[in-house]
Amino acid sequence: MHQPPATEHLLPYRQHIDQLRDCGHDFWRRGWSLGTSSNYSMVVNRQPLTLLVTASGMDKGHLGINDFVLVDAAGQPTAAGQPKSSAETLLHCAAAEHRQAGCILHTHSVWGTLLSDHYRSQSGILIEGFEMLKGLAGITTHEQSFWLPIYENTQDIPELTSRVVAGWLAPDAPQPAVGFLIRRHGLYAWGTDFAAARRHIEVLEFLLECLGRRSILGTR
Amino acid sequence: MHQPPATEHLLPYRQHIDQLRDCGHDFWRRGWSLGTSSNYSMVVNRQPLTLLVTASGMDKGHLGINDFVLVDAAGQPTAAGQPKSSAETLLHCAAAEHRQAGCILHTHSVWGTLLSDHYRSQSGILIEGFEMLKGLAGITTHEQSFWLPIYENTQDIPELTSRVVAGWLAPDAPQPAVGFLIRRHGLYAWGTDFAAARRHIEVLEFLLECLGRRSILGTR
Amino acid sequence: MHQPPATEHLLPYRQHIDQLRDCGHDFWRRGWSLGTSSNYSMVVNRQPLTLLVTASGMDKGHLGINDFVLVDAAGQPTAAGQPKSSAETLLHCAAAEHRQAGCILHTHSVWGTLLSDHYRSQSGILIEGFEMLKGLAGITTHEQSFWLPIYENTQDIPELTSRVVAGWLAPDAPQPAVGFLIRRHGLYAWGTDFAAARRHIEVLEFLLECLGRRSILGTR
Amino acid sequence: MHQPPATEHLLPYRQHIDQLRDCGHDFWRRGWSLGTSSNYSMVVNRQPLTLLVTASGMDKGHLGINDFVLVDAAGQPTAAGQPKSSAETLLHCAAAEHRQAGCILHTHSVWGTLLSDHYRSQSGILIEGFEMLKGLAGITTHEQSFWLPIYENTQDIPELTSRVVAGWLAPDAPQPAVGFLIRRHGLYAWGTDFAAARRHIEVLEFLLECLGRRSILGTR
Repeated sequence: MHQPPATEHLLPYRQHIDQLRDCGHDFWRRGWSLGTSSNYSMVVNRQPLTLLVTASGMDKGHLGINDFVLVDAAGQPTAAGQPKSSAETLLHCAAAEHRQAGCILHTHSVWGTLLSDHYRSQSGILIEGFEMLKGLAGITTHEQSFWLPIYENTQDIPELTSRVVAGWLAPDAPQPAVGFLIRRHGLYAWGTDFAAARRHIEVLEFLLECLGRRSILGTR
Repeated sequence: MHQPPATEHLLPYRQHIDQLRDCGHDFWRRGWSLGTSSNYSMVVNRQPLTLLVTASGMDKGHLGINDFVLVDAAGQPTAAGQPKSSAETLLHCAAAEHRQAGCILHTHSVWGTLLSDHYRSQSGILIEGFEMLKGLAGITTHEQSFWLPIYENTQDIPELTSRVVAGWLAPDAPQPAVGFLIRRHGLYAWGTDFAAARRHIEVLEFLLECLGRRSILGTR
Repeated sequence: MHQPPATEHLLPYRQHIDQLRDCGHDFWRRGWSLGTSSNYSMVVNRQPLTLLVTASGMDKGHLGINDFVLVDAAGQPTAAGQPKSSAETLLHCAAAEHRQAGCILHTHSVWGTLLSDHYRSQSGILIEGFEMLKGLAGITTHEQSFWLPIYENTQDIPELTSRVVAGWLAPDAPQPAVGFLIRRHGLYAWGTDFAAARRHIEVLEFLLECLGRRSILGTR
Repeated sequence: MHQPPATEHLLPYRQHIDQLRDCGHDFWRRGWSLGTSSNYSMVVNRQPLTLLVTASGMDKGHLGINDFVLVDAAGQPTAAGQPKSSAETLLHCAAAEHRQAGCILHTHSVWGTLLSDHYRSQSGILIEGFEMLKGLAGITTHEQSFWLPIYENTQDIPELTSRVVAGWLAPDAPQPAVGFLIRRHGLYAWGTDFAAARRHIEVLEFLLECLGRRSILGTR
């Protein structure tokens, strides 16, 4: 597709942008980022914290090179004239700050939507016994269990962000904290860099599909 | 694939044609437009109303640049020598006229086929509580519910069109009206432009798959 | 992928070959022609009847331009030095002769495998009420029903061919006869040309998926 | 994607590497090699036994030309300075030595994960009656049954390898031995060459999906 040139403030981040565009195309192809759902970000500076975030309302299967916004730690644009950043930008900022994430990806799959509802009374999903868990940073054996928290959905993103951060800061916060679900909304996952974040999304989406299909199959 | 040159009356609409061809290829790849099912259109003029519609019986995965027809508000060809337009052209014209649609897309997916039958006794599907609903124009929170009407299938398209239009013109017509199902036939959705129409298809197909799989999973 | 030049007797049929190669790649991508399952053919001459058939044991996702064989009405090679034609070549010859097929395609999908077993006690599947049926030649309304016969599987292809042909020649043979299932083996479908045969495969695979998922969903 | 040149010791194996890279991309696309799951190998020398194995922790959908390691019969690197080979390298070596495999592929699909658990009490899955079985080397009719053993998962790969080899060397070892499952972990399959190994993976993944969906459909 013909693309206009990148605007000047985005020029230094062209490689990050292309990684997120490719990733968006793949997630869209798989049905994890349909409509204008999902949003993606990368940390491009730590001092001060600066994130490259997808602009609001974009088709993630066909992201243009200018469909991105630079924001600070509070989710505010760092340059004038940028498009509005994704509505859920604050969740990205929080993961970058409190979880040292270098890349944060949000998918909106059928299984993520359904299981975040199916397990809502437990406020999370305990995943254990699967070899695939080893794809999550900090897990070295299938015998280690993983807690994927579920948060109630809301349109009040600052309030949602507070709840998520409170969970991370709690003395008994489950480890590793590499992702969470929002009820009937989907999955957030992150990692130290783009490859780690994408791997975490693939691992967690795979495991959610396993749990959903296992429930239908009736094992155990 | 080698393509003959566009015929003269289609030349001004080459960009619209290529958008619909790409869209058709994607919907076919996903299994939403197999066989020669589905049809797509765009409004290319408002005064007088003129639509570019897919020709009848074409493979939507491999649309050629001449597999399109220009029709007027009554679905009649605006130039001589054109191929026959899709059998359901009148539904496109009605959405363009009564819903101010700029683009109308019809998919024929497995879940659309099944759920339009599963919920037939209710004459529609009430969809609520899903974040994905926000991808529909006019919906700003997951707490807003959406009514997707189901119409009985028929080969009498003028009669079907009358029923659909009567639903829209009724004093208690549900809002927003961005799509409907035909029983055991599939989904129609539209938007102000191509991007909005495609987004509505993706959102509604996603939600139908959610409802179908949730029913099997047994949540609630 | 680098390809050697076509052998001389195949040169006139390069376009047919490329259509079947593209088709094979798509069916493989969808999971309808995995392993070395499936086989495809086109009639390239009527007097005497000559078919271009896929060679035996080839990967249908990556067919080479020489992975094809020319055979006569009895399934015998019409030139020396050709690879062995598909084990089920006689079924192709029979459809070409008795059903005037110009192209015959065989897919081996999960749903075709399962439903040919699920409905075995009825010796076929009655499909009715689906708009998608109109994609089959000879069906003009969703109200027309279609009978998809199921034959017991065997490695004795001449014997299987006799049973299939006997069904077609029976005074009460169901119409239209555009395909059949072999139990736990998959679908054969054909048409007057390549586009019709591929359309019939897509329509029937879609309908089989509908029936399978509907059975799980529990409609009616 | 831009690629650095292959390192010198891998130069002679560029064709093998590209076959495994293409295969990895396809398996990843199908959801059989998500995250950094799966590993693949080819025998590049018999005297002494030398395998080309995927390096540990790589994204199988986007393997680079240097994401491979040369190892000996004991799984030890044959050249200095190579990346770490896959954690499960010993299983590849064992199949190469005891089963004369020329290529060994491991996939990690949803159905392989679930069915290796579903059938764990039987220590394997008896697959019979499917035409697709004929895609396995040594099976010539759908009436021949096939035993797919299931091994309990562990992080102790030498111990797992011993159990697998003991099964092969047992006097009543089932024939043909072209693959096995590890519980909640996935499928190993091999063949005399790359094409045979990939065919075996496709056949077995297809059959696992058939068994899983049949169980849900409730046939028999």
